[in-house]
Amino acid sequence: MTEFIPPGTRFLALPHAFPMKRGGTLHGARIAYETWGAPNAAGDNGVLILTGLSPDAHAAANPGNPEPGWWETMLGPGKAIDSDRWFVVCVNTLGSCKGSTGPASVNPDTGALYRLGFPELSIEDSADAAAHVLQALGIERLACVIGNSMGGMSALAFLIRHPGIARSHINISGAAHALPFSIAIRSLQREAIRLDPLWNHGNYDDTHYPESGMRMARKLGVITYRSALEWDGRFGRVRLDSDRRDDEDPFGLEFEVESYLEGHARRFVRRFDPNCYLYLSRSMDWFDLAEYCSAPCGSRSGDVLSALAKIRVGKALAIGVATDILFPLQQQEQIADGLRAGGAEATFLPLPSPQGHDAFLVDIERFGPAVANFLATLQG
Amino acid sequence: MTEFIPPGTRFLALPHAFPMKRGGTLHGARIAYETWGAPNAAGDNGVLILTGLSPDAHAAANPGNPEPGWWETMLGPGKAIDSDRWFVVCVNTLGSCKGSTGPASVNPDTGALYRLGFPELSIEDSADAAAHVLQALGIERLACVIGNSMGGMSALAFLIRHPGIARSHINISGAAHALPFSIAIRSLQREAIRLDPLWNHGNYDDTHYPESGMRMARKLGVITYRSALEWDGRFGRVRLDSDRRDDEDPFGLEFEVESYLEGHARRFVRRFDPNCYLYLSRSMDWFDLAEYCSAPCGSRSGDVLSALAKIRVGKALAIGVATDILFPLQQQEQIADGLRAGGAEATFLPLPSPQGHDAFLVDIERFGPAVANFLATLQG
Repeated sequence: MTEFIPPGTRFLALPHAFPMKRGGTLHGARIAYETWGAPNAAGDNGVLILTGLSPDAHAAANPGNPEPGWWETMLGPGKAIDSDRWFVVCVNTLGSCKGSTGPASVNPDTGALYRLGFPELSIEDSADAAAHVLQALGIERLACVIGNSMGGMSALAFLIRHPGIARSHINISGAAHALPFSIAIRSLQREAIRLDPLWNHGNYDDTHYPESGMRMARKLGVITYRSALEWDGRFGRVRLDSDRRDDEDPFGLEFEVESYLEGHARRFVRRFDPNCYLYLSRSMDWFDLAEYCSAPCGSRSGDVLSALAKIRVGKALAIGVATDILFPLQQQEQIADGLRAGGAEATFLPLPSPQGHDAFLVDIERFGPAVANFLATLQG
Repeated sequence: MTEFIPPGTRFLALPHAFPMKRGGTLHGARIAYETWGAPNAAGDNGVLILTGLSPDAHAAANPGNPEPGWWETMLGPGKAIDSDRWFVVCVNTLGSCKGSTGPASVNPDTGALYRLGFPELSIEDSADAAAHVLQALGIERLACVIGNSMGGMSALAFLIRHPGIARSHINISGAAHALPFSIAIRSLQREAIRLDPLWNHGNYDDTHYPESGMRMARKLGVITYRSALEWDGRFGRVRLDSDRRDDEDPFGLEFEVESYLEGHARRFVRRFDPNCYLYLSRSMDWFDLAEYCSAPCGSRSGDVLSALAKIRVGKALAIGVATDILFPLQQQEQIADGLRAGGAEATFLPLPSPQGHDAFLVDIERFGPAVANFLATLQG
């Protein structure tokens, strides 16, 4: 079993005993991160990026690793997140398999992999771990924390648990908690992995690996990351050429859209650890910013707003996309409304991107200027 | 392996050799059907109901079977589809496992179950089989053909292949062909079944049955049959009581929405044959009314409209629901537009039901009057 760590990744050792929100303690854990640009003299140009479920810390090329990163078009000298101006940090989420400690890491207490022995992971744990990275880098207060997708949840946890840690916030296709449609999708993805006999209650290896379950989970993910509208234009009902079809398989791939899903799945399955996937996926379902509202509180819309209003940032931008079915637009509007109620100059920016939840990765024509314009208004 | 035939079901033997659209011939096949009401003297009060993927022919209680049917609230004396006035026929789709011949039936040529030896099934085959039932019942021309979901596809095939067979048409949450999002979802459902080792290339039995694959397929179906909006109001983030949770299973059911999916899946898995599911599901992906447009034609929107315009009905109603992600609203609008271009007095009726694709089964408050008002304008 492999962790997937890009070359040039840097690491921060977390405090020897790192307490987890739902109980348990990590010993000797670490967080993988990368940086772009340099701190300025005033130390006020820090920008933190918190990622979605699967990315590593390599958001873009940098001296340590010139390979393009997952947000290459967005981050770098002269780009929307301009590393000539900002000192940018991207962390790999705690619980991931891309360098930060997670279920695929060795448990120093046993010498064996954690697997399902990893403590229950919460979004808050990832947020707290990111705060340690900033502290180690000497960043007392960020100019901005940017969170995408799951990272949008992490950013809210980060802001509410570490008051004053950032002057501003960009929340991209994020949410203050998951709604039941998204929970249902993720529950089914986890079930697909768990049902694969080769998952074996978390005890797989590279030879006995739950590839079918991971492929199924990834395909379902991709279906919900994009949009029907995009696919109508992109694939329509186009069939695969006969040389790309298996005539021996009566239910095999036939339409372009099926081949697209298959390609995505094949590129993913051996590049992400199944147990890490389960832990991170579940942490999104569990996360509920409403827990931080004034007691007594439940998980109603008013409770979410009251929790958001406890966050103190000067400026905020919540961006969403109308075609996003996984983190629907009203959730970014809610974030802007709540932060505004807490005193932030908060903007809700719905974008007409056809690419659904993944738009921030591909529709840079729209997301680039939105992010650049917001950052341009900040000091630092 | 079992077929699931409601008591009181009636059967029509298809012509001894029944040719299938994509090749192959069925021998000794039959279609299951039920009726409500009686033919009038003029023989012009026939109404045919074509169903979605899973229903049987028992749409409502009748003398042969007083148990409630799957459209009980819609069909019967004095109801929206009023059996005091109309002679109503509902057929079980060819290829199903609810009485009509399908992959779970015995192949008379071999004495063994068809399984994957069943010929490739098209929506058109189901439509042609339904036409035989009407002929046997002495119905030359229907007052109306009503098709729901997959039945909306079957109804369009029925109308274009059997000109003059109906004076009017109600298409409910149907489509002239499947779009790539729906194809992707169904492809994944089929893959879930095929990946279950107990599917065994179609060679399962009651003891060795692909239950996991069928559960996964059904859950994914239910996710796409309903809507995020409905679930927000219905489930929110409510957790199961602790006595309904399995503390030993670290990724087990926790949220109400997960339990809802689980319940749906459990009620379905042993009530529908997996091979039949695969055949019917694939027939929906294959169906493309654009094939009937004037040559040369592909599968573009204009081709669909030109095919629809070849259908001759006097009146038509296409009903859809804005929250339907599987058969989205623009597909019902397209049906109305195309039938209108062919000379029909055609109405597109978008309904604000929150229940998504399944709304026609549950939101009778909206669908009942819509169907009743349309039928009230017909002679017969």
